[in-house]
Amino acid sequence: MALLVQKFGGTSVASVSHIQKVAERIIAAKAEGHDVVVVVSAMGEQTDTLDALAREVDFYEREARREIDVLLSTGEQVTIALLSMVLMKLGCAAKSYTGGQIRILTDDAHTRARILEVETQNLRADIEANIVPVVAGFQGVNERGEITTIGRGGSDTTAVALAAVLKADECQIFTDVEGVFTTDPRIVEGARCLERITFEEMLELASLGSRVLHSRAVEFASKYQVPIRVLSSFGQSAGTLITNEDPKMEQPVISGIAFTRDEAKLTVLGVKDIPGIASRILGPVSDANIEVDMIVQNVAADKSTDFTFTVRRDDYQEAMDILKKVAKDIDAREVSGDNKIAKLSLVGVGMRSHAGVATRMFRILAKESINIQMISTSEIKISVVIDEKYLELAARTLHTAFELSVENGNLA
Amino acid sequence: MALLVQKFGGTSVASVSHIQKVAERIIAAKAEGHDVVVVVSAMGEQTDTLDALAREVDFYEREARREIDVLLSTGEQVTIALLSMVLMKLGCAAKSYTGGQIRILTDDAHTRARILEVETQNLRADIEANIVPVVAGFQGVNERGEITTIGRGGSDTTAVALAAVLKADECQIFTDVEGVFTTDPRIVEGARCLERITFEEMLELASLGSRVLHSRAVEFASKYQVPIRVLSSFGQSAGTLITNEDPKMEQPVISGIAFTRDEAKLTVLGVKDIPGIASRILGPVSDANIEVDMIVQNVAADKSTDFTFTVRRDDYQEAMDILKKVAKDIDAREVSGDNKIAKLSLVGVGMRSHAGVATRMFRILAKESINIQMISTSEIKISVVIDEKYLELAARTLHTAFELSVENGNLA
Repeated sequence: MALLVQKFGGTSVASVSHIQKVAERIIAAKAEGHDVVVVVSAMGEQTDTLDALAREVDFYEREARREIDVLLSTGEQVTIALLSMVLMKLGCAAKSYTGGQIRILTDDAHTRARILEVETQNLRADIEANIVPVVAGFQGVNERGEITTIGRGGSDTTAVALAAVLKADECQIFTDVEGVFTTDPRIVEGARCLERITFEEMLELASLGSRVLHSRAVEFASKYQVPIRVLSSFGQSAGTLITNEDPKMEQPVISGIAFTRDEAKLTVLGVKDIPGIASRILGPVSDANIEVDMIVQNVAADKSTDFTFTVRRDDYQEAMDILKKVAKDIDAREVSGDNKIAKLSLVGVGMRSHAGVATRMFRILAKESINIQMISTSEIKISVVIDEKYLELAARTLHTAFELSVENGNLA
Repeated sequence: MALLVQKFGGTSVASVSHIQKVAERIIAAKAEGHDVVVVVSAMGEQTDTLDALAREVDFYEREARREIDVLLSTGEQVTIALLSMVLMKLGCAAKSYTGGQIRILTDDAHTRARILEVETQNLRADIEANIVPVVAGFQGVNERGEITTIGRGGSDTTAVALAAVLKADECQIFTDVEGVFTTDPRIVEGARCLERITFEEMLELASLGSRVLHSRAVEFASKYQVPIRVLSSFGQSAGTLITNEDPKMEQPVISGIAFTRDEAKLTVLGVKDIPGIASRILGPVSDANIEVDMIVQNVAADKSTDFTFTVRRDDYQEAMDILKKVAKDIDAREVSGDNKIAKLSLVGVGMRSHAGVATRMFRILAKESINIQMISTSEIKISVVIDEKYLELAARTLHTAFELSVENGNLA
């Protein structure tokens, strides 16, 4: 008998008949003897609908953010009421809670608040009384009782926060996919649903464009040691367990391949190789609120160098315009760019104990004549930038070469 | 400089552009030097949309009512956020409040709770700071902080309650009509918007099917002596002031003519005239939750009597089935009925001091050969039941005869 926090996202509660299915899942878990606390998102596209109303008003000054939270938080409130009603109709005692009613205390940063504290009194009383608490995700209150929201994808974070304070055995994130895959199954046929993965790996995958789970929720889970299970609302498979590294188990060298096409590359050529030159180039870019991802600089023989970095594809033109001015100021030779690139990353905690993964990756790509334009590495990740048109080929080839289709595929 | 509570109903806030117009009205009142507290309903048909979701779940047991309130209260919450944002955009400081945030304390009767107490701390602080508080109508919280709603049309009551506790100079109910009319202008061409009317008269009109204002709001206003003004959100006229009788002013004999087609009549013929017979007839009808309106019983010469009463037209068939059984049990001769009737009422505080209004009414109807089937009177009202097909004729004839088209028309 375990204590489970079950979170159901927007597609899982998109209609009353979807909510019926969700209720049946909750009741099945209860029937197995588990205690369940439920967290839900707004129904289907409801948050977007509410957002559209705010866009119609079109006033986003600081003082309006308080009201945007009042507006957006209604989406989850509708779901908690309906799901509680359906549970009761099916004979399962249930009770809805807004963020304020639980008292999920956050800071004052409307529309992107951080959870400071979660009161457990109501939740514990309900669990004791065999009532399923149904909690609105994504929302909280500040100290003055004003409604706050914690940013898009925040319901995942709410679920993990509840699981942390309740010391739940598992935080189950129900979604519209079967779990976390070795890579995007729409691109690579052999993509396989992972049985387990570490927090660290999941963080790298999440931040690299694998949209299953919100990064903040994973960080939170890692910090408070809450095992997360990602699984499908519609299927019956066990999904993917995200947890700490298990010291008794040998870790696969590579757990997954993530990629994103949402990138563009800019290069300033013929930059004088003097101290402070990097900040003179990147300063104006940051000032324009453009996020820079990978940065590469090589020192050349003739005291001049080429400086390359990537930005989100949407920001490409603006970054280019800024760089052209900067190039003049710093007397650089010229600026070139490419917005037809993609970033592909191998992620795996096993890399730590296995040298040569990068070399092997480069050799595999070279064999397919795929040119690597940029490289960046972390302890458990190797990212490369390549021409976008080779992305599918690269993903498929690497997926096969590192035997990711095979259960516990391991090159050791 | 006055303190005004301004309430805007669903049709007045049906879209963001409607809300823009509402905001302009509020700002105009501020510009005249008034302090304003705003109460709003859900946008347009939003309450019906939420209600449809509840109907889809189709579970109305007592324990589900708590959740229906959680669901329905989101409608007003959306409006307060949007209106506050629009006000701020137009340069007017504003702040939204849910029922719980003001702390409108109600009893526990979910979906039809009664307001027990309204805290004024936040409202007074805002007024002091020149901020317009925008309050969600229709909702409150019970002592445990659970969301309650106070029944359909409840936003009017919320507005009056706020006006009462704040001792506001006027509670302005903005709606989609110009004010309170002498009778339905769709039926009687000469119908005129009244400049003022008493609480008592308004109560009779409201309960008789004049849908401008909710009865409970009028009762509340009468109890706490809050002057109400009903006026159009879209026009510029002064509307109708609902207040106490002004002893310095002569009251018109008749203020208005109300009518409803939503009635049916049932008669049990040949009932033995013995004690307790009325309750033996009406008991089973009430037990079926059918509301009885007018009741007439005449004692006949031969120790038997005819017993007639009216019910809502929707309940006609069910009431008829019940009566047929009852008639057998009490050995009555037969049961007859008519669901093509209408009720028409003259209302006016001036009746008190003017005898002969009823006689005059009956004479006018007789002159048009309109047969009166039932009569019921109160101190300030005379109601008659007539054949539905004569309703328009009766309304027009009486409206003219009592000179209601004329400003301060008075037969004295």
